Amino acid sequence: MSEEEIKQICNNAKKANQQLSVLETGIKNSILETLIKILENNKQEILGENKKDLHIAEQNNLSKAMIQRLELTEKVWTEMIEGIKTVIRLDDPVGRILEKRKLQNEIILEKTSVPLGTIMIIYESRPNVTIDVSVLCIKSGNTVILKGGKESSKTNVALFNCVKESLEKNNLDKNIVQYVQSRELVSELLKCNDSIDVVIPRGGKGLIKKVTETATMPVLKHYEGICNIYIDKYVDKNKNFEKAIKIIENAKVQKPSACNAVENLILHKDIAIEFLPKLKKALDDNKVKILACKESIKNLKDENIEIATKEDYSTEFLDKIISIKIVENLEEALEFISRYGSKHSDAIITENNEIAEKFLKNVDSSAVYHNASTRFTDGGKFGLGCEMGISTDKMHARGPVGLKELTSYKYILRGNGQIRE
Amino acid sequence: MSEEEIKQICNNAKKANQQLSVLETGIKNSILETLIKILENNKQEILGENKKDLHIAEQNNLSKAMIQRLELTEKVWTEMIEGIKTVIRLDDPVGRILEKRKLQNEIILEKTSVPLGTIMIIYESRPNVTIDVSVLCIKSGNTVILKGGKESSKTNVALFNCVKESLEKNNLDKNIVQYVQSRELVSELLKCNDSIDVVIPRGGKGLIKKVTETATMPVLKHYEGICNIYIDKYVDKNKNFEKAIKIIENAKVQKPSACNAVENLILHKDIAIEFLPKLKKALDDNKVKILACKESIKNLKDENIEIATKEDYSTEFLDKIISIKIVENLEEALEFISRYGSKHSDAIITENNEIAEKFLKNVDSSAVYHNASTRFTDGGKFGLGCEMGISTDKMHARGPVGLKELTSYKYILRGNGQIRE
Repeated sequence: MSEEEIKQICNNAKKANQQLSVLETGIKNSILETLIKILENNKQEILGENKKDLHIAEQNNLSKAMIQRLELTEKVWTEMIEGIKTVIRLDDPVGRILEKRKLQNEIILEKTSVPLGTIMIIYESRPNVTIDVSVLCIKSGNTVILKGGKESSKTNVALFNCVKESLEKNNLDKNIVQYVQSRELVSELLKCNDSIDVVIPRGGKGLIKKVTETATMPVLKHYEGICNIYIDKYVDKNKNFEKAIKIIENAKVQKPSACNAVENLILHKDIAIEFLPKLKKALDDNKVKILACKESIKNLKDENIEIATKEDYSTEFLDKIISIKIVENLEEALEFISRYGSKHSDAIITENNEIAEKFLKNVDSSAVYHNASTRFTDGGKFGLGCEMGISTDKMHARGPVGLKELTSYKYILRGNGQIRE
Repeated sequence: MSEEEIKQICNNAKKANQQLSVLETGIKNSILETLIKILENNKQEILGENKKDLHIAEQNNLSKAMIQRLELTEKVWTEMIEGIKTVIRLDDPVGRILEKRKLQNEIILEKTSVPLGTIMIIYESRPNVTIDVSVLCIKSGNTVILKGGKESSKTNVALFNCVKESLEKNNLDKNIVQYVQSRELVSELLKCNDSIDVVIPRGGKGLIKKVTETATMPVLKHYEGICNIYIDKYVDKNKNFEKAIKIIENAKVQKPSACNAVENLILHKDIAIEFLPKLKKALDDNKVKILACKESIKNLKDENIEIATKEDYSTEFLDKIISIKIVENLEEALEFISRYGSKHSDAIITENNEIAEKFLKNVDSSAVYHNASTRFTDGGKFGLGCEMGISTDKMHARGPVGLKELTSYKYILRGNGQIRE
């Protein structure tokens, strides 16, 4: 890695940016349509590269969660292609007039959306992110520098080559999307705040901490999801609490490695005795390990259950493990979430709308749910096509980051000689 | 300064936040109405404190720009009171439903605006910022920690006391607005990212650099304004270029210490010979010092004019100094602005709408003007009542930061048992 190389990447991005930022919607969509065709034509080859990555990952004993994220299954492939189609259908986020009004002095003020500029994204495992991110950046007029994980490098490069080909086929600058491999290069790029406008780290705590400390440009964090579900005393008891149990199962078991999976269950004391045995059965059936507060263990009459520590309540397990806590009332549940949650996604299960609304208003998280699984916090599910990640920041973008979240704005003022008095 | 003190300030903010973030609009407006009365009742005393600050500033030989910003003139006072009245009239930025739609699975998704949380602002000189910031934060539901400049401390404290009194008169937590004096305290507070959600530094380059390096929470920068005006070849020549000359005079002379004052003039070569003598007369009449490119000096036939260096073109003078550059065409002007400007406010003076639109589209600044003075980039002038500052960032907020810019959002999802397939 040389200084020359860094300069080259930055200059490439700047130059490509001039072309991309003012590109017509039709041309941007045409790139994406070409991309779908190229992907489908190269599907077998790409899946072959993915098999190689998986083979190496297994040899290296990567964690189950990591391998699960790495695999380009038929389902992931279909969602990836559907994601591109949705992004093509969605309105161009650039050039939206967000506000238009006449100031007192007859100047016409127009607040218009513009691309952010150049985005660098650092991600791990999931190779489909390569496509999701490229597609969102192209449609939102942002040049992008991709840095994928080493463990998925073969799949990433195969996918990236399809993006490059679709840019070239449309006679556009191929550096609209760039892919870098080396870590050292990333450290250097994090200092280039005159060329890179924002960096998005998607990965473990260590990566995010390092990027936050090193980066000289704003960081849009995709931090951990310590999600909570609160079972209120007014929970629906029909069919052995079927509604609540199904939501909990879904939030914990359907994809434990996801950031929107639940980690903590909070139970109102008035329903705990009745609810706990049904819950335990469902969790046992799904091979979910239970950690619980003393009060829960007493009610469960099972000495084998481990006690949940403060550390457990603040841990994103990314695995089939769940912590349980019994509380006195809503206030205590809110306090628990405020203390241990990560402001990602939290849910209340209750038939009492007043209590539900209080929960929805007071929980300060990117997504708050009433009677639904936390697993819905996702760009695709929210109708954004796909996502750059889920922002756990409150500034700029919060929750799923789609097209609109990749824009800034500028004020355009048209006058006829006005001066300030 | 003790660790205890830091903890106290953070806890105060957190506690006050629980009260303020869910406060009804009527009560928030009532605080502001009380504040106007208290300010008017204490006007003479406050102006007295301001005189003391000014006296000390003169003794300490502070710069003219600094003293100009420090003075609480009758005009500044009136604008300050008018600012509060406007903020009372403006809609509550919290609880706005930004989007509402039904997802495919019948979940109702609502994207609702929420306060950011706790804001720390570090500012210099201008004491009216104490009121502007308190008022915007109260109305937007954000608790705030103020750190004013030492040079305006007497005025700041007098104004802060009025805010405190108006909170107490409305039976609210007085710690909704806190004021800290010591610099050491600020360094420590910049590490408290679990209690403070964003820090806004308003001041010199040194301050902003230090805050950006130290802060562990997001920084909303109010950086320098290197503003440019481009005089196109299709400029209106009527009455000796009256329109252009008036805009330039206004942008340079009306308040040279402001960030939206112009620093660089760019002239199209085809009008330079005709335009320069008229420009020089106007600038000389206003005692503005001229720095110019070789080509301009040749045209001006004045050997006494200093040559403008690259450093000059990238300097925010905050004084009656202006740099001039002759260019071949619009493209060269755009390149000049991209190289030397600070993406704050830039203007084109032309009667050719096609060229104007190209300029407005291609200049990547928070505010771009056609035939108007750059001095309008201001929360008050944009109809926001007053402002926290003018963001030179592209993330979150860009340009004047008013009420809406002090909010984030959350997704509220109401279901009836939905789980993810």
